[in-house]
Amino acid sequence: MRIPLERKVLNENDRIAAGLRERFRERGVFCLNLISSPGSGKTSLLERTLEGFDKSRRVAVLTGDIQTDNDARRLARFGFPVRQITTGGACHLDARMVERALADIPDEYRILFLENVGNLVCPTSYDLGEDARAVVLSVTEGEDKPLKYPATFHHADLMVLNKIDLLPYVPFQMELAREYARRVQPDIEIVDVSCTTGEGLDRWRAWLEARL
Amino acid sequence: MRIPLERKVLNENDRIAAGLRERFRERGVFCLNLISSPGSGKTSLLERTLEGFDKSRRVAVLTGDIQTDNDARRLARFGFPVRQITTGGACHLDARMVERALADIPDEYRILFLENVGNLVCPTSYDLGEDARAVVLSVTEGEDKPLKYPATFHHADLMVLNKIDLLPYVPFQMELAREYARRVQPDIEIVDVSCTTGEGLDRWRAWLEARL
Repeated sequence: MRIPLERKVLNENDRIAAGLRERFRERGVFCLNLISSPGSGKTSLLERTLEGFDKSRRVAVLTGDIQTDNDARRLARFGFPVRQITTGGACHLDARMVERALADIPDEYRILFLENVGNLVCPTSYDLGEDARAVVLSVTEGEDKPLKYPATFHHADLMVLNKIDLLPYVPFQMELAREYARRVQPDIEIVDVSCTTGEGLDRWRAWLEARL
Repeated sequence: MRIPLERKVLNENDRIAAGLRERFRERGVFCLNLISSPGSGKTSLLERTLEGFDKSRRVAVLTGDIQTDNDARRLARFGFPVRQITTGGACHLDARMVERALADIPDEYRILFLENVGNLVCPTSYDLGEDARAVVLSVTEGEDKPLKYPATFHHADLMVLNKIDLLPYVPFQMELAREYARRVQPDIEIVDVSCTTGEGLDRWRAWLEARL
């Protein structure tokens, strides 16, 4: 007997994700799913983003990790609602985890960031009801990552090339990284940033504001 | 009806892995499973390692990726048998993939490197019949990774702290990274290396030779 379990699990996820998407649409929420390798700088990007927001902005963050609430603590100090989702072993966020964590946040946010578990593979298969996906690639990881992890880049609306302050010290070819990303997703938008120096963050913010 | 599918899949993997381990033991093979985030430098570490080996060394490499045979091509130029395992979407190597790929390599190797898919989560759950596991962590990823991905570090015999040439440019605290790694695996050995400058590679080679 063969049981199509993966399909069933994903269908269940898709059903919950569709509910979340409908709920976001009704309330005018823009939801962004952030995906990357461990240590590419998703949390740093969110720190810089929250830091730049006026305190009246109605923004919330759910941040996923297998263990620890380090990221939630880093992000909470900007005064916006932040909840850690500790997956306890699971290698990705799923729609049910998001639904549960949202129950704990007042329904006032209009921007919702979902910081996925650091993993360039598995999160891609799980719709979280988001409006857009951003993949963060740091220049220390090598320009071949879009070709080696094509599904993640194929499903992304934006590639954030992070840590460009380290370009003088690593053999990373920006143009090649862009070419590879466009090979798997011709319409992908690309912004180059450094969360350390702040360079390029205006372009990231402009991309975000254009979507609100 | 609840079906313990994960256990069943893992049992099947464990059965094949036990067969591989027995085969390695009989033939006096040392097998090392290399795990890390995407872009931490597993392939670079293997390049430097193969480069330093006398051509008479009986070494072979299997290198896993979701797509592309980039890594196999990088490693093949040193003249040792190298096979790419393209997982076609799977986020980890499993024992059956290793068994199949080995069928394609002459039974002469005494050192076998298994370069896993770049993923700090899923590969941990899959025994490949290896004698030891090494986790590669680059200093650009942040020192908190052992706490955030504890299972991977808990099951590792060695942590290779890579890209130490970039230490002047990133806010990475070596002592803290070591402390976090030892918190999840008190017996973990640690070597600091730069595959770019070659610094510390003697310590990595000494670790390896001590195990042969």
